[in-house]
Amino acid sequence: GAVWRLDSGMHSGSRIGFRGVEDLGGGLSALFVLENGHNLDAGTAAQGGLLFGRQAWVGLGSAVGTVKFGRQITPIHNALGVIDPMATGLAGDISRIINSYGVRMNNTVNYTLPKLAGISGELAYGLGEVAGDSSASRQIGLALNYTNGPVVAQFAFHEAENPTGTDSARTTLLGGVYNFTVARLHAAYAVNRGLGTLDTRDAMIGASVPFGAHSFMVSYIHKEDKARADADADQINLAYTYALSKRTNLYTSYSRTSNDSVVSYLAARPGATDKVINAGIRHRF
Amino acid sequence: GAVWRLDSGMHSGSRIGFRGVEDLGGGLSALFVLENGHNLDAGTAAQGGLLFGRQAWVGLGSAVGTVKFGRQITPIHNALGVIDPMATGLAGDISRIINSYGVRMNNTVNYTLPKLAGISGELAYGLGEVAGDSSASRQIGLALNYTNGPVVAQFAFHEAENPTGTDSARTTLLGGVYNFTVARLHAAYAVNRGLGTLDTRDAMIGASVPFGAHSFMVSYIHKEDKARADADADQINLAYTYALSKRTNLYTSYSRTSNDSVVSYLAARPGATDKVINAGIRHRF
Amino acid sequence: GAVWRLDSGMHSGSRIGFRGVEDLGGGLSALFVLENGHNLDAGTAAQGGLLFGRQAWVGLGSAVGTVKFGRQITPIHNALGVIDPMATGLAGDISRIINSYGVRMNNTVNYTLPKLAGISGELAYGLGEVAGDSSASRQIGLALNYTNGPVVAQFAFHEAENPTGTDSARTTLLGGVYNFTVARLHAAYAVNRGLGTLDTRDAMIGASVPFGAHSFMVSYIHKEDKARADADADQINLAYTYALSKRTNLYTSYSRTSNDSVVSYLAARPGATDKVINAGIRHRF
Repeated sequence: GAVWRLDSGMHSGSRIGFRGVEDLGGGLSALFVLENGHNLDAGTAAQGGLLFGRQAWVGLGSAVGTVKFGRQITPIHNALGVIDPMATGLAGDISRIINSYGVRMNNTVNYTLPKLAGISGELAYGLGEVAGDSSASRQIGLALNYTNGPVVAQFAFHEAENPTGTDSARTTLLGGVYNFTVARLHAAYAVNRGLGTLDTRDAMIGASVPFGAHSFMVSYIHKEDKARADADADQINLAYTYALSKRTNLYTSYSRTSNDSVVSYLAARPGATDKVINAGIRHRF
Repeated sequence: GAVWRLDSGMHSGSRIGFRGVEDLGGGLSALFVLENGHNLDAGTAAQGGLLFGRQAWVGLGSAVGTVKFGRQITPIHNALGVIDPMATGLAGDISRIINSYGVRMNNTVNYTLPKLAGISGELAYGLGEVAGDSSASRQIGLALNYTNGPVVAQFAFHEAENPTGTDSARTTLLGGVYNFTVARLHAAYAVNRGLGTLDTRDAMIGASVPFGAHSFMVSYIHKEDKARADADADQINLAYTYALSKRTNLYTSYSRTSNDSVVSYLAARPGATDKVINAGIRHRF
Repeated sequence: GAVWRLDSGMHSGSRIGFRGVEDLGGGLSALFVLENGHNLDAGTAAQGGLLFGRQAWVGLGSAVGTVKFGRQITPIHNALGVIDPMATGLAGDISRIINSYGVRMNNTVNYTLPKLAGISGELAYGLGEVAGDSSASRQIGLALNYTNGPVVAQFAFHEAENPTGTDSARTTLLGGVYNFTVARLHAAYAVNRGLGTLDTRDAMIGASVPFGAHSFMVSYIHKEDKARADADADQINLAYTYALSKRTNLYTSYSRTSNDSVVSYLAARPGATDKVINAGIRHRF
């Protein structure tokens, strides 16, 4: 049956944290972020109860880029945030369908390029920390962005080795946004391979329309299974936000995921349809 | 046997948190509170290990009242805090005997009235979040306060449905404080019904005497069981606090609970007597 | 096999916290510290998941000393921090070999002397909180320090009763540092007795050499077992740090522990050798 819930972090995950920068001179700086995620409905820590489950890292910044060490967001999740009309939030968060590899990765060294000629990017290496096998459980992530006037082009790749180092899951993502001023057009395409015989494609097309304090967002996502029959899924997403101020807004959003007969993306049973509708308030500080 | 303990939060629960208000213009404001409870004796999170176990909510305030969403204190616990000489703290905390329904409720929408002509109040609705049955595990709380010169009158009601939605526990509370300047007289009466055949009454009478930096508090609570014989209990409470500053005070308090032969309120065995004595320092910041 | 890891808190434990002092007048002050430890590599709370696992206490300070109540560092661990060239950090942290009784103790009343004529000290009493037996699980700690020009002399004692109050583990520590300006010489000797027939000695000799922003540290620790044959262990430690600023430094360190045939200090199997090498960045804020 249906459930009425009071939930937390529907527009964007509830968070609070600490961040700092120290200028070390000579263009060098020391940086850190400790960011907690939590659920307002029950006062619990989010991300499975982690204290600083959203981000926890220390790093060094310079003119040739930034190196960060710790728990960090996967480059592919950052890339999805750029091209999703919902900005990986609300009911239609693109990362509910397109794999962002757990949103975050532990034990990670991340190198972020300085922005140059419209190009920015990041490379992440997550240690598997398995004794005697440095490839087991290892993750590698990459994202590249090109922004020029109304055009945003985004590329990302992520590979996660299994715990025995014998196979890996891999996603390659290409996407973009074009700003027509009255509206922005969004599109993305992803290829997913492994573990095992997994071989799927994701295609997204969407639009976002700002109008003063109002914003309307829509997206359609299709998942196609190349390895199995009757294993595709479709999702349509709608959202509306109203800004009460720069820091506070109201929102409502809707997502509907329909599955072919052998798959159950976001649903309880194969072939079932999942619907989410929510409304709320987001306050940033 | 007796136990000597170094404990935390004896005067009032140890806490630390974050709060904020944003003026949205037009009399509207956005509010939030994230409040952690903890135990200084062992460095643990309190409220069963929750990160923000005391309060966690976001809300909107206006001239016609405030709406808050999240984990919040039950209206009946707030009401007990008004009429208890111990302010629901110290060894003789009234909520150790009179049911305040777990002190806090999750998944809650709370509407708080603006104070008008001495009247204030709040209404809370806690979603049960049980699929297919919106009344299961639901909670409803209400409190009304009238303050006029030396008189404070307080009403509260709380109802908590069981997880199957087939029965509920209900408490109705009436209380007051009268300020004679040299001393304040406190009184309360509560009727508890359900789950099942539970049918009890609580009566409290007490006094608080401020004297410069010193405060003396006393209360007597009687619990009467209308459904069972030999099931009453009595509690006497004494407390003394000394203010070192506006933010820091010393305290000592005593509570003695004696049970009739078939009940064991706060005690290990039916018919047993429980005694608590403590002394300490409270620092607010 | 060997493991490559991205870890947290290798130079000194990762931490964030809250502290405060209130001047109460008349030389009296109220103090508190809430200090969280965490692991940047995975965003987890450290010290076994405690929220304020490093320190959590409230206290009163005056001209005759400071009394603190809560979870606090053992006096013997503070003493080891004074005489260890590694300052109980890095790969060669002396408390990995010399018992500092869990680094911290719960339910503790700590009395710290005011510094007078170069002498400072602290006395800690940790309640066992076992019903009917006030000595069970009790801990007593003591540390005394004498500092005069280039000389630092340090004494410490710690005793921890077992949970039944029938036996105790005891360590007596004597150590010192002599500052020759170009280098500091460090030495320590500890006697460990109980539980049961345990009877061991620890001897450490070390040096630290500051050179501008560079620091070089070395120590050698020998553990001798008086009760058992073939039960000794040896550890050599090297470290180098480079200060990027007052708050940020790079570090690398090495530790090698070799065990006699019947013991396995820091190693997986009796007689095995354990090696640790690390490198990283520490940022304080």
